[in-house]
Order: sequence, then structure tokens, then C-alpha cells
Amino acid sequence: MTEAYYSQKIHGPFETQELGDFDLLSGETIRGLNIAYATFGKLSPARDNAVLFPNWYSGSSKILELAYVGAGRALDPEKYFIILANQIGAGLSSSPSNTPSPFGAARFPKVEIADDVRAQHRLVTEKFGIERLALVLGGSMGAQQTYEWAVRFPDALRRAAPIAGLARGTPHNRLLVQTFIDAIASDPAFEDGWYERAAHLHRGLRRHARVFAASGFSPALFNRRGFAELGFSTTDDFVTGFVENHFLPQDPNNLLLLLAKWRDADVSRSANGDLAAALGRIRAKTFVIAIEEDGFFPLADIEAEQRLVPGSELRRVSSPWGHLALFGTDGAYNAAIDRHLNELLAA
Amino acid sequence: MTEAYYSQKIHGPFETQELGDFDLLSGETIRGLNIAYATFGKLSPARDNAVLFPNWYSGSSKILELAYVGAGRALDPEKYFIILANQIGAGLSSSPSNTPSPFGAARFPKVEIADDVRAQHRLVTEKFGIERLALVLGGSMGAQQTYEWAVRFPDALRRAAPIAGLARGTPHNRLLVQTFIDAIASDPAFEDGWYERAAHLHRGLRRHARVFAASGFSPALFNRRGFAELGFSTTDDFVTGFVENHFLPQDPNNLLLLLAKWRDADVSRSANGDLAAALGRIRAKTFVIAIEEDGFFPLADIEAEQRLVPGSELRRVSSPWGHLALFGTDGAYNAAIDRHLNELLAA
Repeated sequence: MTEAYYSQKIHGPFETQELGDFDLLSGETIRGLNIAYATFGKLSPARDNAVLFPNWYSGSSKILELAYVGAGRALDPEKYFIILANQIGAGLSSSPSNTPSPFGAARFPKVEIADDVRAQHRLVTEKFGIERLALVLGGSMGAQQTYEWAVRFPDALRRAAPIAGLARGTPHNRLLVQTFIDAIASDPAFEDGWYERAAHLHRGLRRHARVFAASGFSPALFNRRGFAELGFSTTDDFVTGFVENHFLPQDPNNLLLLLAKWRDADVSRSANGDLAAALGRIRAKTFVIAIEEDGFFPLADIEAEQRLVPGSELRRVSSPWGHLALFGTDGAYNAAIDRHLNELLAA
Repeated sequence: MTEAYYSQKIHGPFETQELGDFDLLSGETIRGLNIAYATFGKLSPARDNAVLFPNWYSGSSKILELAYVGAGRALDPEKYFIILANQIGAGLSSSPSNTPSPFGAARFPKVEIADDVRAQHRLVTEKFGIERLALVLGGSMGAQQTYEWAVRFPDALRRAAPIAGLARGTPHNRLLVQTFIDAIASDPAFEDGWYERAAHLHRGLRRHARVFAASGFSPALFNRRGFAELGFSTTDDFVTGFVENHFLPQDPNNLLLLLAKWRDADVSRSANGDLAAALGRIRAKTFVIAIEEDGFFPLADIEAEQRLVPGSELRRVSSPWGHLALFGTDGAYNAAIDRHLNELLAA
């Protein structure tokens, strides 16, 4: 089931870049690291129109394409060369689910957000010869990667747009993410990650989906039946048909690897834990975009970090879909994001 | 362990009123229903100074006493005769944990908030001969009971103060409460409620505590280490030492009975589902009190109901402790509540 899911048929077309044996910051090695990505538009002769957009928790490049890329959108392939990069562990790039024994499944090494960014930097420079990206952006875990890019490679991007995410997780966010982890890992069928078939953990995946949904959308989405726009009838119909349906085909070890990355993301690690010093290194023109109803990354926490980014601006958008407006289900959110990105790209 | 916990030593002194065979609204019967309660102060000769305060989820009359009753507080035993009533299923009144076979444990009948209110009405009228209470108040599930009192027995109370709770659960609140239920019931040791010892479910109880904590307190409480005031060092130290410590000695079947009551509470059931009609029956002078940072019962939802209560006023309080400011840990919250209650009691 997971093999059929993590496929060109569902998430393609995508390409894969082999980066060889890749040393992680932990000291572990991923042998023959593959990074899956999709591109849109053409790289200009000056190589100055490239946009990098890494994916969020549990998504792939496909949802980024569907929700953000297109003619007339801010990310218009007529103007930009857009690279949608898939995280390590998300199922298309090297992941627990596609790495053979003995290093696959529960033994897949722990990966950090910074490892993804280092791998993406190699993809961008070695594969495409791009020295400076016009924009790096991303939502949620994509925002974590965007911040890490801007801190780690300050001269490699002209602009940055972290959306609905933090450079360093707050204690509350870590607690919340741990409840997502616990919902999956507590399924007796998990067996420390050595399950025979991912589908055997469907109860844990469903519990995870429900805890995720309860704070991922705003209360108003449920209470005013905002999900009816998508054809769902009741809260339960929506949570099953939209959220459980999203997670059930995915591999639990993959999700847990991503969740651990999410929980532990911290750009200050390269500055001895000094967040102000780390964010102070950013040279990209940065629009920090917050969703006012976000239950995962509250506005106040996002704003506290934005103030530490030199020359940055806070841009607020509003959606009853809360954090999960990222999915592109809310036309008003999409239009607002495009306005902010257009302004940033014109800067 | 649960017997030692649900004891006079820990929750007393409390008294118990036997109400005989009690017919529930579902049609089921609790044989020899006991309602545990504690009283403070003296009933006036005119029997017009009585305050009823039913307990919330998982608490007992003891925490209500410690957090709200005392000389100089709004609920001053020098002025009022204060009755702190324990919910059916909370461990001191008739509950799954103290009902012998064959009707105890998983077989204990399903109870509604309205059943508690009917039992409390008998306690108040039959035991104490009180026709009209000066005030009914309660927080969270106590607010649900307060609303039910005001709708079901509109002439039996002069004033009402539902705090941080709703008359009818919203779809979002029901989803959230279901995640609490799932965290306990998914423990393999639960065995459909036929576990041998409650302590065997400590993993499920711990998961429940963590999901509960993640939205029960405001994010700011964790992120600004507000828990340090109570002597806790880290998020994990606090969640373990405060929240897990609170739930671990309790009986899972008791908690699940209470959670189902919470999830399903709805005063409109006695008005054919018409919430406006039900709340329109209220004659008590009502202060609806909301906690601005409440992640369980958001301000907007509380305000929407308050507008349906004739002559009512919305009173807002603020606390980084969020919903769980109810516990009395925040001095500023306690002082604000006392101000509102003093004003209401003077009306």
C-alpha cells in the first residue's frame, strides 16, 4: 500500500538526484541519498529566477504544485524556475519506507532539518549551478527549512518567506508534536517500528489524524461547517474523509521521522543556542507570514521570532482553516499569500 | 490505588446523600444512588443564602473548596451556605469505580449532565429544604451543569455563573473530547473497561494527560515557563508532576464516563434541539464568564451562547493558565473571578 502511494502515479512527475553517501550532522551516514524534486518553468541564462519550495509535514511536491504553482499565481512558471523539494523521510526522497534492510524502517538514521537544507543546497548548486536563489519559501516544516536556509547560507538566497512556522520550536509546540508521535507509536502494532505492514497501524494513524485535526484547523472551521465547501457533511465525515484519508496510506516510520525533525528543529544550534544571533545572520529580504488562527504556531510566537530577523516584515493572513489553510483549500488564503509573495518578489 | 484515592483522607471531609433507585433520562436505573457533597457556612433561617457549586471534569469538591471557598473570598462561609457537589462518576458519588458487580466498572450506565442536575435538585430540596438557590456556579463541566440548572429549573436559582464552559458542546469541542477518550480507551490494557487494575493503564492515562495539557493551558504558559511558579523546572517536569500526577490515581472508567457526559452535554435536548429556546427559559441573573486564552472553550463560542441568555452579561478574564486557570493556580484569575462573583451576588 505505501509503495503504491509513494509513486510517480500519485505524486509525479518528479525526478530524483543521487547525492552519494551523505554525512548527517549527527555523524550518521545515509548511503546513496536520493532527493526527489519537481521543477516548473525555465532557469534564466543568468540563473537568477530560481525559487526553492521544500515540502511540509507529510506532504509531497505534488500538493505544493497544486496549491501554489501556476499561471497567474505568484509562483508563475512563466517567470520563475520553481524547484519543489521533498524532505528526507517524506517517502519520495530517501526514507524509512524505501531504504532496504539493514538501514531502512526503524533503523533509518535520525535526520535534522539542517540535513535537508544541506542536501537541498547541494541539489541547487551541483545539479542546477544556482549560486543565489531568488526566493526560498515554505509552510510549517517548510518554514523551518526556509529559516535554516537563510541562517546557514545567508548569501545563497535573495528573499525568504517562512509561512506558518518557527525557526526554533517552542516548548508548547514540542509538547503538541509529541502527542502526534505518541498517537502513532502507542499502537501495539507499531512494534518499535518493526511492523510487517503499515496498514496494520491504521488505528494509531487514525488517532494521530484526529489529534492533528483538533488543533490543525480553527475551532470555527468545525463549528461553522466550513468543510461543507469540500463536500463533507459532518465533523466525523470530514475528519475521516479528509484527514484520516490523507494519513492512512502513509508509512508510520516516515511520519515519525518527520515529526521528530519538526519537534527538534532549531536554527540556533549553529550559534550555540543563541536564537537572536542565528536569526541576526539573515541577509535575505524576509516576509514572515503568520496565519492568525494557527493552533500549531500561534501568531505571538511567530512575531517574537520575526522581530529578530533584520529588515523583515510580519505579514498576517486569516483563515478558518487555521494552520491547514496551507493545503490551499481556502481561496481567500491563497489570494492573500499570492499578494504577499508578489510584493516580496518585486522587492 | 483508586480506593485509597477516592477517600475521605484525600477529598474529605465530605458527606453522602442516598437518593434511592434513581431513574436516568436514558431509562436506565442507578440503584441506591449516592451523591457526595461538602458544605461550608450555615443555611440562613430564610434558606436564601445557599450556593451550589458542582465539580468539573476529574476534580472533586476538595479542589473547589481550596480554590474558591474561604473568608474574604466571594464564596465566604460567613455569608453563604455553600454546597460543593460531586458529579456522578467522579469517584465519590456513585461511580464505575465504587459500584459493585454486576453494575460497576464498564457496565455502569451512561449518565447525562441533566441526570446530575436532577440528582442535585433532589439533594438541595429534600435534604436541605431549599426552594431557591442564591447562586449556582461552576467551571467547565460545572458550567454545563450550571446551564442545565438554569434551563431545567429556572425558578430554583436567583443567579447563575457558568465559567469557561458551554450549554451545548460545539463540534470542535466534541472532537477534542473524543481525542481524550481515545487516548485512554486505546490502551490495550483497557480491555473494554474490564481491566483488573487501573494502574495497568498508566500509559493511556499519561497520553490522555498530555493531550489534555497541550490545549488545556495556553501556549504562553509553556513558552514563558509560567509553571516555574509552582516549582516545576521543564515542560516535561510540569506535565508529569502536575497533569499526569493528577490523572494517574484516577479510575479510567470514571474518567471515560465523565468525558462522555462532557462530550454530549446539551441543554437544548429538553427543547427539541432549539438552543435559543432552551437558553431563553433562563430567569436567573447570569454572568457568563469566559477565559480569553481558553483552548477548550474559545471565547467566541461562549459569547455566542451568552447572547441567547436573557439579561445576561459576558465577563472576560485572562490567564496564561488558559482553561486550567480554573484550578486556582493563578492569583490574578482568582481575584478577577471573585470580583465578578461579588458583583453578581450583590445584584
